[in-house]
Amino acid sequence: MEYFKGIQQIKYEGPQSRNPLSFKYYNPDEIVMGKTMKNQLRFAMSYWHTFTHMGSDPFGVATIFRPWDDASDVMNNAKERVHAAFEFMEKMQIPFFCFHDRDIAPEGKDLQETNARLDEIVKVIKEEMARTGIKCLWGTTNAFSNPRFVHGAGTSANATVFAYAAAQIKKAMEITMELGGENYVFWGGREGYETLLNTDTELELDNFARLLKMAVDYGKEIGFTGQFLIEPKPKEPTKHQYDTDTATVLAFLRRYGLEDYFKMNIEANHATLAMHTFQHELNQSRINNVLGSVDANQGDPLLGWDTDQFPTNLYDTTLGMYEIILAGGFTKGGLNFDSKVRRASFEESDLFHAYIAGMDTFARGFKVAAKLIEDKVFENFKAERYASYNSGIGKDIIDGKVGFKELETYALENGTTPNTSGRQELLESILNQYIIETK
Amino acid sequence: MEYFKGIQQIKYEGPQSRNPLSFKYYNPDEIVMGKTMKNQLRFAMSYWHTFTHMGSDPFGVATIFRPWDDASDVMNNAKERVHAAFEFMEKMQIPFFCFHDRDIAPEGKDLQETNARLDEIVKVIKEEMARTGIKCLWGTTNAFSNPRFVHGAGTSANATVFAYAAAQIKKAMEITMELGGENYVFWGGREGYETLLNTDTELELDNFARLLKMAVDYGKEIGFTGQFLIEPKPKEPTKHQYDTDTATVLAFLRRYGLEDYFKMNIEANHATLAMHTFQHELNQSRINNVLGSVDANQGDPLLGWDTDQFPTNLYDTTLGMYEIILAGGFTKGGLNFDSKVRRASFEESDLFHAYIAGMDTFARGFKVAAKLIEDKVFENFKAERYASYNSGIGKDIIDGKVGFKELETYALENGTTPNTSGRQELLESILNQYIIETK
Amino acid sequence: MEYFKGIQQIKYEGPQSRNPLSFKYYNPDEIVMGKTMKNQLRFAMSYWHTFTHMGSDPFGVATIFRPWDDASDVMNNAKERVHAAFEFMEKMQIPFFCFHDRDIAPEGKDLQETNARLDEIVKVIKEEMARTGIKCLWGTTNAFSNPRFVHGAGTSANATVFAYAAAQIKKAMEITMELGGENYVFWGGREGYETLLNTDTELELDNFARLLKMAVDYGKEIGFTGQFLIEPKPKEPTKHQYDTDTATVLAFLRRYGLEDYFKMNIEANHATLAMHTFQHELNQSRINNVLGSVDANQGDPLLGWDTDQFPTNLYDTTLGMYEIILAGGFTKGGLNFDSKVRRASFEESDLFHAYIAGMDTFARGFKVAAKLIEDKVFENFKAERYASYNSGIGKDIIDGKVGFKELETYALENGTTPNTSGRQELLESILNQYIIETK
Amino acid sequence: MEYFKGIQQIKYEGPQSRNPLSFKYYNPDEIVMGKTMKNQLRFAMSYWHTFTHMGSDPFGVATIFRPWDDASDVMNNAKERVHAAFEFMEKMQIPFFCFHDRDIAPEGKDLQETNARLDEIVKVIKEEMARTGIKCLWGTTNAFSNPRFVHGAGTSANATVFAYAAAQIKKAMEITMELGGENYVFWGGREGYETLLNTDTELELDNFARLLKMAVDYGKEIGFTGQFLIEPKPKEPTKHQYDTDTATVLAFLRRYGLEDYFKMNIEANHATLAMHTFQHELNQSRINNVLGSVDANQGDPLLGWDTDQFPTNLYDTTLGMYEIILAGGFTKGGLNFDSKVRRASFEESDLFHAYIAGMDTFARGFKVAAKLIEDKVFENFKAERYASYNSGIGKDIIDGKVGFKELETYALENGTTPNTSGRQELLESILNQYIIETK
Repeated sequence: MEYFKGIQQIKYEGPQSRNPLSFKYYNPDEIVMGKTMKNQLRFAMSYWHTFTHMGSDPFGVATIFRPWDDASDVMNNAKERVHAAFEFMEKMQIPFFCFHDRDIAPEGKDLQETNARLDEIVKVIKEEMARTGIKCLWGTTNAFSNPRFVHGAGTSANATVFAYAAAQIKKAMEITMELGGENYVFWGGREGYETLLNTDTELELDNFARLLKMAVDYGKEIGFTGQFLIEPKPKEPTKHQYDTDTATVLAFLRRYGLEDYFKMNIEANHATLAMHTFQHELNQSRINNVLGSVDANQGDPLLGWDTDQFPTNLYDTTLGMYEIILAGGFTKGGLNFDSKVRRASFEESDLFHAYIAGMDTFARGFKVAAKLIEDKVFENFKAERYASYNSGIGKDIIDGKVGFKELETYALENGTTPNTSGRQELLESILNQYIIETK
Repeated sequence: MEYFKGIQQIKYEGPQSRNPLSFKYYNPDEIVMGKTMKNQLRFAMSYWHTFTHMGSDPFGVATIFRPWDDASDVMNNAKERVHAAFEFMEKMQIPFFCFHDRDIAPEGKDLQETNARLDEIVKVIKEEMARTGIKCLWGTTNAFSNPRFVHGAGTSANATVFAYAAAQIKKAMEITMELGGENYVFWGGREGYETLLNTDTELELDNFARLLKMAVDYGKEIGFTGQFLIEPKPKEPTKHQYDTDTATVLAFLRRYGLEDYFKMNIEANHATLAMHTFQHELNQSRINNVLGSVDANQGDPLLGWDTDQFPTNLYDTTLGMYEIILAGGFTKGGLNFDSKVRRASFEESDLFHAYIAGMDTFARGFKVAAKLIEDKVFENFKAERYASYNSGIGKDIIDGKVGFKELETYALENGTTPNTSGRQELLESILNQYIIETK
Repeated sequence: MEYFKGIQQIKYEGPQSRNPLSFKYYNPDEIVMGKTMKNQLRFAMSYWHTFTHMGSDPFGVATIFRPWDDASDVMNNAKERVHAAFEFMEKMQIPFFCFHDRDIAPEGKDLQETNARLDEIVKVIKEEMARTGIKCLWGTTNAFSNPRFVHGAGTSANATVFAYAAAQIKKAMEITMELGGENYVFWGGREGYETLLNTDTELELDNFARLLKMAVDYGKEIGFTGQFLIEPKPKEPTKHQYDTDTATVLAFLRRYGLEDYFKMNIEANHATLAMHTFQHELNQSRINNVLGSVDANQGDPLLGWDTDQFPTNLYDTTLGMYEIILAGGFTKGGLNFDSKVRRASFEESDLFHAYIAGMDTFARGFKVAAKLIEDKVFENFKAERYASYNSGIGKDIIDGKVGFKELETYALENGTTPNTSGRQELLESILNQYIIETK
Repeated sequence: MEYFKGIQQIKYEGPQSRNPLSFKYYNPDEIVMGKTMKNQLRFAMSYWHTFTHMGSDPFGVATIFRPWDDASDVMNNAKERVHAAFEFMEKMQIPFFCFHDRDIAPEGKDLQETNARLDEIVKVIKEEMARTGIKCLWGTTNAFSNPRFVHGAGTSANATVFAYAAAQIKKAMEITMELGGENYVFWGGREGYETLLNTDTELELDNFARLLKMAVDYGKEIGFTGQFLIEPKPKEPTKHQYDTDTATVLAFLRRYGLEDYFKMNIEANHATLAMHTFQHELNQSRINNVLGSVDANQGDPLLGWDTDQFPTNLYDTTLGMYEIILAGGFTKGGLNFDSKVRRASFEESDLFHAYIAGMDTFARGFKVAAKLIEDKVFENFKAERYASYNSGIGKDIIDGKVGFKELETYALENGTTPNTSGRQELLESILNQYIIETK
């Protein structure tokens, strides 16, 4: 059956279109930097926010009611949800999806039944994938919603919960592999602490490393060729999450010898909760060669929680795509909309409006970033700015030919050459011009 | 003499221009909504940030050196500064300036000499105003930098400091009037507290009201017809400023019967320090009929101090101008760039780049806002959204015809009609389209 | 039946006790400043956080399971909950409770049934009140959880929702009066906006004033002699709540002529979300004569949402009680623990530990504050600090005998007298000494 | 000559003393945990905040005037400052000091003169050290105040500035060694970026690593046996500092193979600017074996800049000392008061009040922490909480005996054992009891 009746496939109609149900900037087959937009942006739908988020918040119950979730029979509902999800992705021209195990199938009375339910739904998903050509970007496990994870999963104070989480990840890796998932993501839902008064951080971090090591080993054993990703977040739901930001995760991976196996899944809203810009986190991942994939959303800079809004800020998408292009673009990763419609956007058409908003804003940002790079706007400025390192004492520094004594001699004899302006205001002005004028 | 040699007057060259020393969006004589841009935007130069800010910060000394500030003779320097300032405004096509008393003339050995110095400089400024046609948007007093104001001015614990501040404001009002200033601004530099442990907030607020009352009285006495403005700020330099935000100032004015005499001077960066958007503060001023003038700048949402950056965010200028247009536009107020070049933008040309950035971004925002209003994009949506108040029970509520009993009867009989979506994502998407596509 | 088996009434055992189920600082009948602690602190239990909060958060489901909420029969559960609540209050020696309509009785299929259910439960509560002597501090309505309030209640875009909210408040006022509630609270759950793009703030604020006016009128009609309270909060659940803080509410009340009818219910965590200290909000309420009651809890200064933790910070309770004592103490108000046990504190005994923590911390803060005031520690310092306003030019300022001209003359002739140190570090040091050493 | 006339050496008078110029809690020779307080707390005076901070802020000039800084002759003033500093430390019983090169001697016309001036002052300092027995905790260089460092020092875009910084560090290391400094600190004053639009973060970080490598090499060459320390800070003065927090520094050190040579100098206010607690940063340093030294101060949790207040919060000093004790206490490090008197605390006696406040608060925190550890309050709770890792499946996890397959088998067969409460409220309550009651 058709769930989104009356809504046709969303088409590119160009920036002048007044049709709200059209793309103004996302033209899937348009060639940018030598390849189609769709092959570079690699948009993905988040199964959870799009199909299981019902609008509840800490001060109110669900506002969203979907015909395929009538609460009649949980497994039947789960199957209908698969059909609705693929219809939605087809109509939105979204080529990938991402999921948690618990999004696609409800938990059963025990782990046996839960796993059997997963298998039953995976079968339906595979049929839909075959029918539509839509692919799986990544899978993950939800090891944070169930009360058993109240103290964390891999960092739980309870060893049997650690074991349970391991079992759950094992299964989630298996179904991700079965669905051809190109990555497997770890977001440490409750891997953190509520208060240091009761927490042994050292044991908890050691255990978390043990869990990741087991995942790496099991991946090798079953021949999983996808990329492992860690998604940093500084807080929420816990008071302090262990995977604060890219740098924190890198420090952790390097301590435990895990740095060769994991890349980052950077979420825009998590970056700002960590008091970084989205671009900063992408930049730090890029220069450390760990930029894996992106959770595309945005936060409200004046709010202190994860709002997971659809990304509509052109500065963020432009500067985000700028870093992604400089990193060589996505290989296995993509732009997963870890974004949810506002609680007050409870109508079905809002799902379309919201994804159009996000996809158009990223497509526009991509084109602007590509043009900035093609014109070498910032690259030429930087080349000149750092030119003193290309010769003379600067080159000697880079080449490791000098130490403190040689540099002191140099400074005593030469002092310093004048600095030049950083030109921040001019560069911001040019960025605006590109955002508005790029064709 | 000419200070900015080699720089010609900045002209509008249109959005395709690659000349950094040109306007891309600010076309002074272009007609928008029936009037020229320059007459509606009413740009003003801030004397302090443009001509006395030398790039020092809490961790470093000045980086900026200007030929007209050679530290040779303070009064001579002050006069040269006037000439440089008017040359700058002419070249930038800026029709107004704003000043503190201490920006234009240095303090002397006592108040007598200080006032004499002010008079001497005011004379030079008047000559330049006559020569160029540039006008004074507003004046104010600096009653926060001198150590005597360590505990505040109107809220000082020391009554003689209150008296001194009053004397200083009297003189600043007089010279503002002499220069034809259209407004007089109160920014409570240190009117706040460092710790409640030593502060009598009630006495301090009573005293602050007394000071404002004296200003109103003195204004009447001397026939000052300009508008009094208060500029809210929540913190910095004090731990907690009394004039936190628009609402706080309104509560204060209403308590002391001063609400008829003061409007707001809204600063964008102060709004965000108060955890509001720039638009929010303008909106609240508008609906309370106290939108007077604007300090145009921007903060960094990830930093907790007043960065006073030049405004380059198109969202803020568009939504800011949207409120200003809805308020009927500026009458006596204008857009004063209370913005300073970054410490690393220490070259003279950076002043031009920075003002171009700010003026272009506001001009673009203005055109986008005008088009949004012309097309009634948000207005039509809101009209429909609140339509239930135009008839039936809604109109009865508005008209005061019903109370709790009637409404209970209504609710018991009718329940509620379905809500409709708030459509936030769609509206944000349309806003982007207007920002990019407005001609 | 007894729900908290094995837990006896919590008794005062003094600060040396190692019994976790005892009070160390709260000695109900101890005389402080001439009256018993219990009669001054007027502790209240929040019905919602204590008896309907089950530990869910945006990333996880309930962790708390109570025997009286077995989900068998909603009305039967509601009655058992009353019995459990009163048993808890008796064992905790808590003399008051506060409630929302929807905490005590579940909504029915329509407003008729919902109201009938309320009546049924109110009857049970009255029996328990009569049996125990426990009283109602205040009632309120929950007009934010149900999806009908997705756009607000009194500020909804939908007039029928306004009507429904009015009907609900009418009923809540009636049952509060029936239960002898000493106050009626308005917390504007969703009275705010998600985005200004779709919001008519002026109409919404006008409507909110209309709603409050109706409440005042209806209160007069039915002879309600309790105090109306407004509880400020700056954000959450909405992006921006209208009742941001004390000052914002005062500006609103004064605009609409409502200032004689409302006082503040200050919540500590709401204060910090508004970037104020708890003391600041109490201080501002005190000097404006609107300090009504207190929601006792605390937030985490590094988190950006309402954590509603039990108050355990001695600085906050000391300085909070300091303001409350200066305001003359509570008349109708009290200290309501709008606090919830952490999601990981899911055992029944945690309810006791948490209330003991909060009550002890406030009792300690009270004793320290009383001693500080008795010793005039800060009062003497302030008296000297502001002494210049007691005579001479200072007194003339206070008495309104001088204006700008006289003050200029004074300043020209006298300059300023030297300032003296604010002594913040010394005062903080003394505060510590009092917190530790007060007997 | 004596500078602090009328002030005698500050003595311990016990908690009941009303003498503001006495210690209430810091008893230098009291034995705690087997050693004297003074030998464990290792208090240090910051030369800059105590002797060169004059109270200026971004909105005002100096409020503090000291007789030994009469601006007569810079070198003479610098020498007098040494005498005043040692008199102050003697009177305060402070056994250590910390300094930047530029605090102790003013820059000359070139690096040659600057270095000669340093040598001249170092000689005076050595005499005072010999006279008093006061020692140097650490030295560092100020490579951020001079305009040449506008774009950073080791991360400057200008290679000659890098060279100059290297020369400056070389000299600072030499004089630190000459003064017997036990550590050498790197605080990256402007090592960060203002905008990513003009910044090559990869080159800058590579260069910063090159600089540190040179320092390590030079230290070996000259036989410097002190500990190198890095002091993390997330922002200010730059928009984003590279050394954000402990984790970020560890990621950096591990990337460049520098982890064996550097430990952390944790500053409380920098921790909170990074959205961590002081305890968190100490905890993370401890479990990574890099806790070197501490900059003792505190920020205001509601302000977003580095306020560098004297530490007076007993929670922070208690929990901070708790981590320091668990780390084995200080070896080469200590508690350096990187704290400045408030701008309004401009009298000389405020220096004494402020240091007394900080030293007493840390001494009290130390005693409370020692008692908490002696009584194993939190340690016993944690031991029980994590007991499931001591045997059975938990021990197998720790011992690396099981992987995903074994854990799945376990989970399928056993499910999970019940979790127990985290008891946060009870633990916070006990902490309060210890803070108040510890003898």
